[in-house]
Amino acid sequence: MKQELLDKVGCYEFLAEPFHCDFASRLFMGHLGNHLLNAADFHSNDRGYGMNYLMPRHKTWVLSRLAIEMQEMPKSYDKFYVETWVESAMKYFTSRNFKICASVSDGSEAEKVYGYGKSVWAMIDTETRQPVDIFSIHDGLIKEYIETEKPCPIAASSRVKMGKDAELVRTIHTYYNDVDVNGHINSVKYIEHVLDLFDLDYYKTHFLQRFEIAYVAESHQGDQLNFYVEKVGDGGKTEKDASVNEPQKMEEFCIKITKISQNSDIEVEVVRSKVKFIKK
Amino acid sequence: MKQELLDKVGCYEFLAEPFHCDFASRLFMGHLGNHLLNAADFHSNDRGYGMNYLMPRHKTWVLSRLAIEMQEMPKSYDKFYVETWVESAMKYFTSRNFKICASVSDGSEAEKVYGYGKSVWAMIDTETRQPVDIFSIHDGLIKEYIETEKPCPIAASSRVKMGKDAELVRTIHTYYNDVDVNGHINSVKYIEHVLDLFDLDYYKTHFLQRFEIAYVAESHQGDQLNFYVEKVGDGGKTEKDASVNEPQKMEEFCIKITKISQNSDIEVEVVRSKVKFIKK
Repeated sequence: MKQELLDKVGCYEFLAEPFHCDFASRLFMGHLGNHLLNAADFHSNDRGYGMNYLMPRHKTWVLSRLAIEMQEMPKSYDKFYVETWVESAMKYFTSRNFKICASVSDGSEAEKVYGYGKSVWAMIDTETRQPVDIFSIHDGLIKEYIETEKPCPIAASSRVKMGKDAELVRTIHTYYNDVDVNGHINSVKYIEHVLDLFDLDYYKTHFLQRFEIAYVAESHQGDQLNFYVEKVGDGGKTEKDASVNEPQKMEEFCIKITKISQNSDIEVEVVRSKVKFIKK
Repeated sequence: MKQELLDKVGCYEFLAEPFHCDFASRLFMGHLGNHLLNAADFHSNDRGYGMNYLMPRHKTWVLSRLAIEMQEMPKSYDKFYVETWVESAMKYFTSRNFKICASVSDGSEAEKVYGYGKSVWAMIDTETRQPVDIFSIHDGLIKEYIETEKPCPIAASSRVKMGKDAELVRTIHTYYNDVDVNGHINSVKYIEHVLDLFDLDYYKTHFLQRFEIAYVAESHQGDQLNFYVEKVGDGGKTEKDASVNEPQKMEEFCIKITKISQNSDIEVEVVRSKVKFIKK
């Protein structure tokens, strides 16, 4: 029996819980990231190609890239909505977009939009860890859900280039609460660890306008994580679109995370990230 | 106009979100703690003595103690319910209980109960940091909501005694994501930091049956936190009720957290905690 198709766009309601908000009562980016991942999860489950279907078949979605760009962060106790849809699907990768808004989106000019997100996902076999053909699921069902018209007006994740001079600024250990159900360091925890590189005082004077992260390899509990930071525009690099973006008000940082596993001294890159702050 | 009284017991639905679950697909205790705090928040807001009423009046609830005892942890994607009610109220402290169950509680023997919680709260003035008379809020309205009949069959938080031999096992720094809206280290983050003292391998062979924590003083971003651990029963101490509790299957640890603030070398106690694991 053919399942009836749902709307291409799913919409999910969330609450900016008080303990998920920062010193300024604004939702932490890490918790927003978690809500986007939940929305992706609900959306794909509802449509038959989510974890509920994949897990018993030893397959899983793997988040490869995530970019989030915000005009404003929801405040403590704000209800907000995450819309999500699949913008494109290829054999080994899908692009999924997000829109974060204050009310159910009606496309009117009056609606309040907090921001947008873009993500890239792969599917793997959990036993072989090899990529899976996404179109093998329900005979390419996901193709019925491609939505290309709905706007998501932010740049996709770029390839974050790091110079050789990036500075090692922090080394941390990984613990029980960092580890997800796959035994890997949780995608959201990396977001928190990256944003923890900036001081509370920095957040008091800067708004985190854009956050992007690419997951390069997996790390495990007990791994030591090294954080390298490079300020964009430093070291003689030129700032693109400087005149448009008022560079004096903007600060961009590229971050590379490497791991050193227990009983090893090989340093392996696990994450690249880029963050953009606007001076308040 | 007198507001109509609601039920004394509030019931709130939550979802064990996949990224809030550990390697074994069980909800992390820290996230459960967060849900209990949310339930407390919703319950008191609905009844007129919550943060929504207090914050504009420069008052706030402060969590003083929390004990959680579980028979089982909700699994990934489980819906569960947190019931909460105020068991007693005095001038400067209230006791609030929690019941965590798989369905809306009907008191039948068939209902599945995950566990229970007990907490103690004070109210303070956010400007003077001094205690506030809880009965000054709406002319003692909270007294209308005392529920003493509903069972919560776990021990209240005890005074955690630490010997002089507790070992310093970890020192961590505190960062942006640790800090709550009051500028203090978030109550839930302490739960995570305490439980991070135990290794993934330990959780594979032990069930966290009881967690309790007492908040002694506040710490701030930039403070260094020191963790001291003492195993109960070690060092010649006797285990009460040893015959009943099958001590060979149980391991208890007392944990003390101290802070050393920036530009200071004074070590101040901020948290005491006690955890009880059952060997699987």
